[in-house]
Amino acid sequence: MSPTRPVSHASCQTSAVSTRSSRTIDLNADLGEGFGVWRLGDDEALLGVVTSANVACGFHAGDPSIMGRVCTRAAQAGVAVGAQVSYRDLAGFGRRFIDVEPAELTDDVLYQLGALDGIARVSGTRVSYLKPHGALYNAVVTHEAQARAVVEAVAAYDQRLPVLGLPGSALLRAAEALGLRTVREGFADRGYTAAGTLVPRREPNAVLREAAEVAGRAVRMAVDGEVVAVDGTTVPVSVDSICVHGDTAGAVDLARAVRAALAAAGLPPTPFTR
Amino acid sequence: MSPTRPVSHASCQTSAVSTRSSRTIDLNADLGEGFGVWRLGDDEALLGVVTSANVACGFHAGDPSIMGRVCTRAAQAGVAVGAQVSYRDLAGFGRRFIDVEPAELTDDVLYQLGALDGIARVSGTRVSYLKPHGALYNAVVTHEAQARAVVEAVAAYDQRLPVLGLPGSALLRAAEALGLRTVREGFADRGYTAAGTLVPRREPNAVLREAAEVAGRAVRMAVDGEVVAVDGTTVPVSVDSICVHGDTAGAVDLARAVRAALAAAGLPPTPFTR
Amino acid sequence: MSPTRPVSHASCQTSAVSTRSSRTIDLNADLGEGFGVWRLGDDEALLGVVTSANVACGFHAGDPSIMGRVCTRAAQAGVAVGAQVSYRDLAGFGRRFIDVEPAELTDDVLYQLGALDGIARVSGTRVSYLKPHGALYNAVVTHEAQARAVVEAVAAYDQRLPVLGLPGSALLRAAEALGLRTVREGFADRGYTAAGTLVPRREPNAVLREAAEVAGRAVRMAVDGEVVAVDGTTVPVSVDSICVHGDTAGAVDLARAVRAALAAAGLPPTPFTR
Amino acid sequence: MSPTRPVSHASCQTSAVSTRSSRTIDLNADLGEGFGVWRLGDDEALLGVVTSANVACGFHAGDPSIMGRVCTRAAQAGVAVGAQVSYRDLAGFGRRFIDVEPAELTDDVLYQLGALDGIARVSGTRVSYLKPHGALYNAVVTHEAQARAVVEAVAAYDQRLPVLGLPGSALLRAAEALGLRTVREGFADRGYTAAGTLVPRREPNAVLREAAEVAGRAVRMAVDGEVVAVDGTTVPVSVDSICVHGDTAGAVDLARAVRAALAAAGLPPTPFTR
Repeated sequence: MSPTRPVSHASCQTSAVSTRSSRTIDLNADLGEGFGVWRLGDDEALLGVVTSANVACGFHAGDPSIMGRVCTRAAQAGVAVGAQVSYRDLAGFGRRFIDVEPAELTDDVLYQLGALDGIARVSGTRVSYLKPHGALYNAVVTHEAQARAVVEAVAAYDQRLPVLGLPGSALLRAAEALGLRTVREGFADRGYTAAGTLVPRREPNAVLREAAEVAGRAVRMAVDGEVVAVDGTTVPVSVDSICVHGDTAGAVDLARAVRAALAAAGLPPTPFTR
Repeated sequence: MSPTRPVSHASCQTSAVSTRSSRTIDLNADLGEGFGVWRLGDDEALLGVVTSANVACGFHAGDPSIMGRVCTRAAQAGVAVGAQVSYRDLAGFGRRFIDVEPAELTDDVLYQLGALDGIARVSGTRVSYLKPHGALYNAVVTHEAQARAVVEAVAAYDQRLPVLGLPGSALLRAAEALGLRTVREGFADRGYTAAGTLVPRREPNAVLREAAEVAGRAVRMAVDGEVVAVDGTTVPVSVDSICVHGDTAGAVDLARAVRAALAAAGLPPTPFTR
Repeated sequence: MSPTRPVSHASCQTSAVSTRSSRTIDLNADLGEGFGVWRLGDDEALLGVVTSANVACGFHAGDPSIMGRVCTRAAQAGVAVGAQVSYRDLAGFGRRFIDVEPAELTDDVLYQLGALDGIARVSGTRVSYLKPHGALYNAVVTHEAQARAVVEAVAAYDQRLPVLGLPGSALLRAAEALGLRTVREGFADRGYTAAGTLVPRREPNAVLREAAEVAGRAVRMAVDGEVVAVDGTTVPVSVDSICVHGDTAGAVDLARAVRAALAAAGLPPTPFTR
Repeated sequence: MSPTRPVSHASCQTSAVSTRSSRTIDLNADLGEGFGVWRLGDDEALLGVVTSANVACGFHAGDPSIMGRVCTRAAQAGVAVGAQVSYRDLAGFGRRFIDVEPAELTDDVLYQLGALDGIARVSGTRVSYLKPHGALYNAVVTHEAQARAVVEAVAAYDQRLPVLGLPGSALLRAAEALGLRTVREGFADRGYTAAGTLVPRREPNAVLREAAEVAGRAVRMAVDGEVVAVDGTTVPVSVDSICVHGDTAGAVDLARAVRAALAAAGLPPTPFTR
């Protein structure tokens, strides 16, 4: 099922059984986010849980040796490698908006894409999708010029590379406009508003930590395409991939719970790149 | 004539006429060595003179936008693009030896190769060879472990990529050992010792600046495979490419004089990648 | 005349002769904006023209050796040294807004201030004021939180350091609120709107290049406290320092013309730090 | 006892009891070695153990905010702050030798010294000594030119700042030649050769991990000025400070054991800067 065709999703609601059997869900996480001597998150553990690895490309984290190690192990584990591109900002871990000129942003994304792809191919795999990181991810939800800049790099590099992002974002619209495949992601451990957007991190109920609850939400998102918002209403969310985190021991356990629950519901996570 | 087969070179000495007609000479220069707002050298002018452009890959110079511009214009001008890889050292312009672990150096070279190649392909060309820059160039003349580290990256990335370097260097020996094509370079504006090595820059007669003299030496190197050393003796130097500089207006004029003299001698510069 | 006491300026209008003889004007320019092997602008020439040097501190430009050379020569020339602090952005030359947390911005400014001051003291001078660079300069015209962050660093470091900025900016208001001396700057080569703000660079008449005209505007600003706006109206601009540029040969000539005209008008440029 | 006055040390040998009561021992560790989002070591725990904190200055680790936090807490804890200066090498954590020109190294050290001192003063303390980090520490054991370059920065910045380093190193000799106070450090958890040098890390017995043994060696070093070498001989080592590590939980426990043992032996660690 192509994630960019809402028509398929409509059929999903009328013909649940056959759709469930044909659709798949992906599990993605950020990996390789150390730099030099520093480490962040448990790459090893996550590579046993997720189906898609968003690998840092050196601009917010990730030096060439870390990139190589993650790609090699992802290849061994059958985990898809995606380019987790960022603003050039090691000191800020890519979490600060930078007002980069779109043309320069396109070049920065190309540079990161090519660098990771070279390392990935030598490691027995390939870059098979792109996902923006941090402040860039947030910016391209609404920043049309930066959104276009990012997807122009993807289209120029390889027209077959999907773009992973927030449903309804400027990024995914710009990707579709260029004929790129889009992959919509959901967050099982984040609160949603009645409008289907994420509850900002500073508000109550922004982040959920109870494993059973998070796993249950993941299943409902993946199987039924819906989530219960903070006001109690049920909101439709069509997602192709669920994002999990791995920067704490608890987060890895949560990710494992999500994976187990999806498998138990008949949707064992599968890379969307297949 | 393949530069990696000394047998051909032997025939070159016994059968000068036919060899001259079949052999070619390449003209290479460092390009794209600005960063951000800063510029170094006259990229535009040099692209009208050289046949191979050693493009900086971001570690000693060269940001993604500069890399893109140089690649685009090189593609238009029919100039071959090579990856001018370096130690990670913007502050020192890659001119300071860094005692990098060989495994990390391999990863650093791969990163730079992939980044430039991605940009080059989007710009209508490809990385078609590799040449180390600055202190790394000097180190791999004798530093066996770093030399191997560099060529291992090339071999892993693309077995068909030639390596450009100093004749007799550890780099070219390591490249040959891995089955890579090697390209030997000469310096028409540098003094040579009777042993065939370059006169160190701090000594007298290290650098020549008179256009007619430099052009004459280039022709003698390219056509006859020899150079007159500082002690007056004639020294054999077999080179496939001649390196010219472009960081001053005078240097560009010198490069033009070299090109014109080679063309007049029946050896119009041609990319060795053809 | 203290730039922070409007009362003095009122007396300036009623008693022109005595005021003119007592008031002074400063000439400032950005210096030391190279990095590593790269150069920008003619530091040597400008040190013979200006009275205050805004020295880059390593975050957008300026490595420790460049900083040392500029400080040494500024000390010899009797030119005051100011800390030209910036976002951390070598690749963008500090010209891109970065949404830094205010507390981190304060720390970044302190780091730059201390680094330059250490080098300045060893070079026979001291940091005697602060001026933000590029996108940070523009941001703190209106960005209250970043403006406060910058001046909090100054107040914590040395309560006696003046802050140089745009008249009416959030930066100067925040500096005054902390009891810091403020120094207002004008741009003789920039068009002004009837509201007293600068004409954006992309609009017509944003930049003036004719030496006699620019010099004439500098004198009128310094002596009469006014400028003719693009719509022909005369606008009051009270400035203590005039900013000149030095990144082209023409710019240095313009700076010299401004200095000569001010001296001829009886206001030879003098550091505001005296 | 001043480490730079051999006369005092002579009296130390003839009058052990009174000397023991008058001499002191310092305990130093590397702190603030995170960068941006990344952390390394347990700064909080170590500030409760050591008497001198070698604070990273941004070239191998340590951003301005981390530097500020460590300085503030060191000031509260009465721990002395030293500038842990390094080669410019975030990617390599300063652990790779870089062949920097001595004049540039002096400027790099000055920059780091000034930056940390500015932050320290705002945090209620001051830089009160300097210790080179990583590959620079190792280089200046024998590299005369780089050793001189480092101490020239210290002497120019503040003639009263002591230099902490390996006994017998080129660094301490160069510091003495410039009239700087030197502070000799020992390593209780490292094996020593019969010549009094450290056993290289790749050899057996290079690192000791058993708390009682390490604490015992620290006491013997501090009280008796000797250590048992790997060949069983007793070697004299005169040290003013003992270096402990804190990058693992076990290391912090080891540091606590060393401190407790010294206190029990009548030598509670005291900053050498007092």
